Order: sequence, then structure tokens, then C-alpha cells
Amino acid sequence: MTPGRFITLEGGEGAGKSVNLAFVRDWLAARTGAEVVSTREPGGTPVGEEIRRLFLQQDSLAPEAELLLVFAARVQHLRQVIQPALARGAWVLCDRFTDASYAYQGGGRGLDVDRIAYLENWLQEGIRPDLTLLLDTPPELGKARANGRGDADRFDTETERFYGRVRQAYLQRAQREPQRIKVLDASRPLTEVQQAIAAVLEQWLSKL
Amino acid sequence: MTPGRFITLEGGEGAGKSVNLAFVRDWLAARTGAEVVSTREPGGTPVGEEIRRLFLQQDSLAPEAELLLVFAARVQHLRQVIQPALARGAWVLCDRFTDASYAYQGGGRGLDVDRIAYLENWLQEGIRPDLTLLLDTPPELGKARANGRGDADRFDTETERFYGRVRQAYLQRAQREPQRIKVLDASRPLTEVQQAIAAVLEQWLSKL
Repeated sequence: MTPGRFITLEGGEGAGKSVNLAFVRDWLAARTGAEVVSTREPGGTPVGEEIRRLFLQQDSLAPEAELLLVFAARVQHLRQVIQPALARGAWVLCDRFTDASYAYQGGGRGLDVDRIAYLENWLQEGIRPDLTLLLDTPPELGKARANGRGDADRFDTETERFYGRVRQAYLQRAQREPQRIKVLDASRPLTEVQQAIAAVLEQWLSKL
Repeated sequence: MTPGRFITLEGGEGAGKSVNLAFVRDWLAARTGAEVVSTREPGGTPVGEEIRRLFLQQDSLAPEAELLLVFAARVQHLRQVIQPALARGAWVLCDRFTDASYAYQGGGRGLDVDRIAYLENWLQEGIRPDLTLLLDTPPELGKARANGRGDADRFDTETERFYGRVRQAYLQRAQREPQRIKVLDASRPLTEVQQAIAAVLEQWLSKL
């Protein structure tokens, strides 16, 4: 049995991650016939979902506490869900993963990326995404879309400058790892974004 | 204005930390006239108390997740409560602190102490207790006392072997830092324990 593959979706607020996650899940299941485990961070386990709630609701959370909470949820997620799924040959599709820690807590909050890298190297035991789809939108468009949802959390009240830094951090990571991180212009209409996603997935699968 | 002092109480289950915390608080306030901030870990802030609840209730929490949660609560506690209190000259008295991470997550769960030391050095910004009172009891006595309370949590169901490792880790730390960590035999009657605590505090204050 071949081990499963690990695919993540990343992007700022209002980039369309949820709808495109469902699209990728269905596309992969139809195209590969494999079991596809669709999950999210922070979350994906009972304790992870409780941490997500804390993470989104608490005012005045110290940036370091934010980073530690997200990695606490992540290590639980890895041990309970992601590692067992990959070991049994399932594909794992995750809405946000460690790239988001670099983008939000590194770029957005200004924490030292060496701290994030230390946690990543220690806790992930070599597990990193095989492919990452970065849904890129200008912060002003993403914020307008997210505000339209009417479910504002702690991150939705952040400034456009914060989201500008998050976006730059994501794009810098994509520049450094172009083989893994594929940037998609998510400001286009949804059908065009999904055509682009399908093309990226098809090309990536052809090289496996 | 002199900066405040930071005193912690440590010990396994059923060592009498709560009753002795109140004793130390009242003793210090009467003896020094200083403001004494009495607090606890995990906890001490709104998010910290929520983390405490998660920490005590969740089954099958990965050891690394346990460690990250306790440090997330700790960094929030440091920034919101401990650092401001010390800066204004108050004394801080805390029920458990980083020695407990070494004892429980290091000794008890078997996590690498270098990981704990990394988090301590990064997050505490040089803040360490000035004095630590270690209430030492044999695990079988502590467990019998804790079971008598009837409020069992995730740690109360741990084995005596687990608590034996926790105790050894505490005692090893005390051996390495005898100036800071004072070991008190908490298996004795409460009045004797408190006489011993008062004697330790009196001697320590005389050297400040």
C-alpha cells in the first residue's frame, strides 16, 4: 500500500477556502478513488475544536499564546487524525496548516519565524504537505467577502495592514517553495478559480 | 520602588497546596505589608482558566499538546498578571509554575526536558521564581488525600508510578537548585508543615 498524500488549502479571509475545499475533496475522490479525509485547523479533533473556539473568541491573546494554542491543536490533530489517515493510505485535505502559522503569527503578529520553525521541526515528525493550494486575494477584497458572511471573529476585526502582512508572508513562502505551494488568483469568479485548481491538481497527479 | 518577589508552591496531588497557599499569602501580607497577588497555573487569566478546563478534562491529550497548552496559559498569565504585578512592586504567589511542567510533562509523561527548557527560555523573558516551596509527599499518601476530595480529574486517574516519576523529577530539581527550591515534608500534620513553611520564609526574608 502506498502512503496517502497530504494536501493543504491556504489563504487569507474571504479567499473562498471552504467552498474550494469541498470542490477539491470531491474532485480528488472522483479522480483517484482514494479515501479523502477532509479536515481543518485549528480544529479537526474534539480538543482542537475547543482550542479553535478559544483562539477565535478570546480578546487580548498574547501572540505567543496564539502560536502555542494553534500548535497544541496541531499536534493533537497530527497524532489522532492526520498520521493515522496517511498511514492507512488515505489522502488528507486540510483547511489551513503550518503555512498559516508562518503567515498569521509570523507575518501578521510579527513573531520570530525561527520559533515557528522550531515547533514545526519538533512536533510534526517530518510530516509536511505534499501540495499546498494558496488562494490569493488582495486583503480589501477578502475582507469585503468575509464581512459579508456576518460571522465576525477575532481575526475579522484585524486591520487591512495586518492582512497585507499575512498575504506577503504567504507569497514569500510560495516563492521559496514553488514546487509545493501553488498560488491561485482567488479574486477571479469561482468557476475560473476551480478550473485553475483542477488544472493544478491534474498536473501534480501526472507527476506522482 | 523595589520590584516584587515571585514565590511558587509545588507538589503532587494531595500535598496540601491550596490550604498552604492561603497560609503563605496571609503570612506574607502580615509580615511584609506588601500587596500579595495569589494565583495559579494552569489558569490565572480568563483564557488560562479555559485552558485549565481543557487540560484537566480532555482524555487522550497528546503529551506535547499538554505541554503547549500549559505554556500557552503561562505566557498569557505572565503578560497579563505576573509581569505587571512584579513591575508595580507586588509579590506574586503562584500555585504551580514551570517546575510543574518539568515534573509532570517531563518526569511524568517522559517528554524531553530540553523541549521544556526551550519554551521556558523563550517565553518567560528571564522571569523565574525567587523562592519555591516544594510540598513533598509519597505518592500513595497524596493520592489517598486527593481521592478523598471527590473531584477527580484527568490527573487523578494516573497511576502511582506516574506520581512516583513526578515526585522524583521535583526532588531532582530541588537537589540542583537548593537555594531556590525548599523541600518540605508534607506528610506531617498541617500545623507542623505550616511551622516549617513559616521558618523557611522567615529565614529567606532575612537574607533579602
